Amino acid sequence: MADSWVNSAERIGADLHLEMAGAGPRRAALIRALREAVRSGRLAPGTRLPPYRSLAADLGVARNTVADTYAELVAEGWLTARQGSGTRVAERAEPLGAHARVPTKAPPRARGPRHDLRQGTPDASSFPRAAWLASYRRALQQAPNEAFGPGDPAGRIELRRALTEYLARARGVRTEPERIVICSGFAHALRLLFAGTGGVLRGPLAVESYGLGFHRELLATAAVRTVPLPLDEDGALVGELGRERAVLLTPAHQFPTGGPLHPSRRAAAVDWARARGGVILEDDYDGEFRYDRKPVGAVQGLDPERVIHIGSVSKSLSPALRLGWMVVPERYVDGVLAAKGEREAWASVPDQLTLADFIVSGSYDRHVRRMRQRYRVRRDRLVAALATHAPHVEVTGIAAGLHAVLRLPPGTEQSVVKAAVWQEVALDGLAEFRHPAATMSAPDGLVVGYATPAEHAYGAALDALCGVLPPG
Amino acid sequence: MADSWVNSAERIGADLHLEMAGAGPRRAALIRALREAVRSGRLAPGTRLPPYRSLAADLGVARNTVADTYAELVAEGWLTARQGSGTRVAERAEPLGAHARVPTKAPPRARGPRHDLRQGTPDASSFPRAAWLASYRRALQQAPNEAFGPGDPAGRIELRRALTEYLARARGVRTEPERIVICSGFAHALRLLFAGTGGVLRGPLAVESYGLGFHRELLATAAVRTVPLPLDEDGALVGELGRERAVLLTPAHQFPTGGPLHPSRRAAAVDWARARGGVILEDDYDGEFRYDRKPVGAVQGLDPERVIHIGSVSKSLSPALRLGWMVVPERYVDGVLAAKGEREAWASVPDQLTLADFIVSGSYDRHVRRMRQRYRVRRDRLVAALATHAPHVEVTGIAAGLHAVLRLPPGTEQSVVKAAVWQEVALDGLAEFRHPAATMSAPDGLVVGYATPAEHAYGAALDALCGVLPPG
Repeated sequence: MADSWVNSAERIGADLHLEMAGAGPRRAALIRALREAVRSGRLAPGTRLPPYRSLAADLGVARNTVADTYAELVAEGWLTARQGSGTRVAERAEPLGAHARVPTKAPPRARGPRHDLRQGTPDASSFPRAAWLASYRRALQQAPNEAFGPGDPAGRIELRRALTEYLARARGVRTEPERIVICSGFAHALRLLFAGTGGVLRGPLAVESYGLGFHRELLATAAVRTVPLPLDEDGALVGELGRERAVLLTPAHQFPTGGPLHPSRRAAAVDWARARGGVILEDDYDGEFRYDRKPVGAVQGLDPERVIHIGSVSKSLSPALRLGWMVVPERYVDGVLAAKGEREAWASVPDQLTLADFIVSGSYDRHVRRMRQRYRVRRDRLVAALATHAPHVEVTGIAAGLHAVLRLPPGTEQSVVKAAVWQEVALDGLAEFRHPAATMSAPDGLVVGYATPAEHAYGAALDALCGVLPPG
Repeated sequence: MADSWVNSAERIGADLHLEMAGAGPRRAALIRALREAVRSGRLAPGTRLPPYRSLAADLGVARNTVADTYAELVAEGWLTARQGSGTRVAERAEPLGAHARVPTKAPPRARGPRHDLRQGTPDASSFPRAAWLASYRRALQQAPNEAFGPGDPAGRIELRRALTEYLARARGVRTEPERIVICSGFAHALRLLFAGTGGVLRGPLAVESYGLGFHRELLATAAVRTVPLPLDEDGALVGELGRERAVLLTPAHQFPTGGPLHPSRRAAAVDWARARGGVILEDDYDGEFRYDRKPVGAVQGLDPERVIHIGSVSKSLSPALRLGWMVVPERYVDGVLAAKGEREAWASVPDQLTLADFIVSGSYDRHVRRMRQRYRVRRDRLVAALATHAPHVEVTGIAAGLHAVLRLPPGTEQSVVKAAVWQEVALDGLAEFRHPAATMSAPDGLVVGYATPAEHAYGAALDALCGVLPPG
């Protein structure tokens, strides 16, 4: 016993000495040192610790300091104290790393590809830091105290008011603040709408034959069956809608093939919803970005009681803000809020107030205009580069949005995508977006996100793209 | 036909005139005016619009402006154009408000109660606006461009690193950044852990017999069966754990009854988890606020492979930020990230970077210390007020946290809660927090959140509280 204690004491002493040389109170340093010694395994489970007075004398600290330390570590479960058997290292303090500690998964996009032409994100280097910070400052300074208390699950009224005005003006959406629910983006909106037994919508849900895979996965996880609608040059064939409960459309700019939904199809979709009691989910993911004419207004404006309009700042500002909105028919408002949960505001309140200020102050319009200009130039450069280097490749879906579709000769998509990987050009083939149950023809093509690279990197990305296209 | 047109023209003309007097291009003004006229019902469905040239002449605009406007509104579905029948107002443009438009539900807490002693929120007026803004500015200025691109679902590495250090230092949590997942608060963490078929945990889940109702509801929605564990003065009777898969505990400060989990119970919980392959969910909701001695360290430190440690800034800073964290065993990391979804970062990236800066710069510690001081004074005032005005009422659970429990004479809780409503004192009775299947005795009591009121309002709230207590 004496031996084992002497050994421990030496080891503890050394550790403690090292630690206690640091700043701060002696007691805290002693607690840290002992914890560390147990953690690292240098003090093995079951080891008996020295009596207070010995350790206190050894270390030159008050006896109470040691007594407090032991009590603290007993309370935390590092040590055990039993009448008559003294203080010992607890059996259960398992060292970290006893199990595998190697991270199994690299964080996605930790290191970006050399040329990033993936669709879906705006140029991250163009985030309007100064203007956003100015809005943040104003928002934080002007916020009432209650803004820092528990939030309204619908989101801040300031933001819902700003959005009501903005969406009416810019997107032709007809609503009022009471029908807007703030969320963290389109996927969150889908989750809320189809949230288990509490959700306001149920499947089957008609979707476009081409769309985002992660939306389909999310719906599958929520046990929502999706039924693919064929597409033609006028958009989704909504005439094929039948007994589905809802239809998910991208009317402003079909994702990813690129055209707007034809007016007659818009009308037919609304007619279907009215006749069948169905609902249209309008994914207005890039409605602000239309280059050759005014944006096409939202379908929601045709019948606010039949359309759930969903938008976000993910394309217009940054997906990093996690800020979006749902404009919902009156009868769904309570259900969506219930799904959201009363204690969860989900989107940061300072950010909501900042976006409200950003919109009201005109910064949002200015930023969208600036980016529209910039993306238009990029689109034109893409078209020009292809005309020069690959005149046989048709570019479509370029009237709007942040991406284009390059039609490829039949049977070549897979090899072009492989060549792109080889050349470190990140982009997706059309097949990536196809609903597994789609029956329409499967054209070969590439989806090229021309907004993604930073401004200085765009030229090189275009060159690399042209290099992987099949010869004419 | 001519008549109906003349009437429409007059009405349109008037509207257009009004609208077109505003700034901006004529075409936009004309579109707005026509949309409004259809929206409001002044232009009834089916009404035929004048030919381009008539309207152009009437309004003094170019003929092309009218043609463009009609085309735009046809594209949006407001108007229809058919060969030979001219342009008409579409049948389906339903005016907003055809259905009930009265908001059915006032936003919760839109107007606060006169005296707010509800548990669960820090003093909203104490949010450290200046220090937070300083961190936000630094974070926004120093963020790399990729921060504004698609995020890592685990959360920003900067924040996970800061939390690793902070949680080790302040809470005795042993982890590494790769095992931390950022979320928007405790409820979000629960959702992620029990997320449908993809969740890493399944029920039954043992819970404390007293706890938050909205956690129970959330679990019920996720089809997780909860089994109540009785409580005594040492915390949850973890010796009664059996075949449950997991247990949810509030070890630092039982919510709401108020004591820390006894060291022997901590040890027993870990033993149970090891023996049965179970998991402990540690809700460390107010671990920073301990008044009479150093905080009790986290149970997680005893066995990082058996404990999921969950915390947030909701009590320490504000629930409005929606920022929390989960420290998860290695084997659950991938599952939790999968449940989170690759495209959803959920918590705003600028806010994550801000919190990282706030912690690393020492602002977080300073704020917690300041608030600890302030809340301790409030607690002492509460105890003193009760000693003077209601010496027969025992106060418990006051060593830590932002609330106290007032034990009431048997059978009086309900009437005291009613009296409180009458006196506009918002607080909850203990019954509010009781698991419906709990079998332990049901003491009468009040849960008093002494952190909630603003500083200047606290005295009046205390007076009002004393006024509703039963006579001795």
